[in-house]
Amino acid sequence: MAVAYPHFLVSENHATVEPPKLMGSSAASASCTSVNLTQDDLKKIAAYKAVERVESGMVVGLGTGSTAKHAVDRIAQLLQQGKLKDIVGIPTSKKTHEQAVSLGIPLSDLDSHPVIDLAIDGADEVDPDLNLVKGRGGSLLREKMVESASKKFIVIVDESKLVNHIGGSGLAMPVEVIPFCWKHSLDRLVSLFADAGCEGKLRKCADTGKVYVTDNGNYIIDLYFDREIGDLNVASDTILRLPGIVEHGMFIGLATSVIVAGVDGITVKTKVGSELEVDSFCYNDLRNGF
Amino acid sequence: MAVAYPHFLVSENHATVEPPKLMGSSAASASCTSVNLTQDDLKKIAAYKAVERVESGMVVGLGTGSTAKHAVDRIAQLLQQGKLKDIVGIPTSKKTHEQAVSLGIPLSDLDSHPVIDLAIDGADEVDPDLNLVKGRGGSLLREKMVESASKKFIVIVDESKLVNHIGGSGLAMPVEVIPFCWKHSLDRLVSLFADAGCEGKLRKCADTGKVYVTDNGNYIIDLYFDREIGDLNVASDTILRLPGIVEHGMFIGLATSVIVAGVDGITVKTKVGSELEVDSFCYNDLRNGF
Repeated sequence: MAVAYPHFLVSENHATVEPPKLMGSSAASASCTSVNLTQDDLKKIAAYKAVERVESGMVVGLGTGSTAKHAVDRIAQLLQQGKLKDIVGIPTSKKTHEQAVSLGIPLSDLDSHPVIDLAIDGADEVDPDLNLVKGRGGSLLREKMVESASKKFIVIVDESKLVNHIGGSGLAMPVEVIPFCWKHSLDRLVSLFADAGCEGKLRKCADTGKVYVTDNGNYIIDLYFDREIGDLNVASDTILRLPGIVEHGMFIGLATSVIVAGVDGITVKTKVGSELEVDSFCYNDLRNGF
Repeated sequence: MAVAYPHFLVSENHATVEPPKLMGSSAASASCTSVNLTQDDLKKIAAYKAVERVESGMVVGLGTGSTAKHAVDRIAQLLQQGKLKDIVGIPTSKKTHEQAVSLGIPLSDLDSHPVIDLAIDGADEVDPDLNLVKGRGGSLLREKMVESASKKFIVIVDESKLVNHIGGSGLAMPVEVIPFCWKHSLDRLVSLFADAGCEGKLRKCADTGKVYVTDNGNYIIDLYFDREIGDLNVASDTILRLPGIVEHGMFIGLATSVIVAGVDGITVKTKVGSELEVDSFCYNDLRNGF
């Protein structure tokens, strides 16, 4: 079912709040009426909303995954319609590179464009301070390279991705490791987070059962936590100090905005200094259904 | 010219000093007479001295490079002579793996032996606190994995490797990076150390001119510093936080002993708490020449 963008955008509320206040539920929920939407509709809505920020002439980081795919599609559509011009895309994976090429989006890389105006990507978890877990799709390293080089980084998620704390979804926090002695690396990682009830698993391909290999030729250890892991910056440094670890999936302090699409509406959370500005949009007055 | 070990070991002095006092020159120099030795002789002397610490039944980390090669040769010799038994070697590179296999040393890896009794390896620089630069041979990552898993790590060097501070030799401090957008990583590394007059170069093979590729399929950026880089732990964390960086060649606080072979004798520096115990051995009374 196609989303007839921008018809879902109708009424608008605005509030500035401390980061934790509106998290865990959609800011749009108080005054909005729920609309029957699939999870993929929500992903598309968040993606289209983010692409509103793309302007002609920009260098744009192109994310990877089922949500980011909609943003790439939308950028291509606007280029084809002539509503955007002179975009340079910086893909965050081989898969996104292929998608963008097939859609005719002009591409480059970080070597030629070390500063990116705006990156748009999905996330697997978003905590109340806009810290993320990414990489369940396996592209955490290139995503982090691109998004840490971006002036603005907009995260697009459906509301199922909101968590109270990193690891809180019970799903994986991925760590990219070199293949050499990966079991040793797994054991050292699990030991680091013994207090958080950590378990680790080597990622395998769901279809073939073979070890999953990243675009960079590395393996992924998926970590699962029973409890909070404490200070995220400390956890990050501790992981990175282990030799054999290439990168982890925590994106701490990188997101500048998060767009959350829920069944009630859209919430846009933007960092303004140490606070969050929260805008909410209802689907109530939608003139054209989905 | 073969070194007829252990004939170079004759007299012995002993002193405990603060770390900086005896660095930059051999502790053995005050009371010893110089012997005409090549740099390779010195490497061999340091290596043989280190192998004295290897005991039957040990799991031993086998280093990589022209100095460590002598240690691997010596361990194989003692195994063949029946003076050592039940050694398990953990090689730090494909090259050392091949050398050890050709010499008949039984091998394993970190996955099977996550705790190593003793590792022996060379270094490119040794500072007064026994911090090292390693990796000019390209094996920094596997070396760091093995040596950080070792209860004891003995570094073997000729006296030309002693520096007043990391980077002080004017030679490279290597950083292993993923090939993806290596130029971007190079630029970010150089920016980090702009105050130290840092320059960076992608490593190429001297013989072919092609990009050098590590055992892990990565590239190496060689960093050169005009001045000191400040607190090494801060520098380490700052480097490791860059996405795209796999590992760097600073080995901070890992060495438990350093054996320095000079033209006057051998100096053995061993960490005892926060101090260094320094033993020196002269070649003066050598009964059999080299």
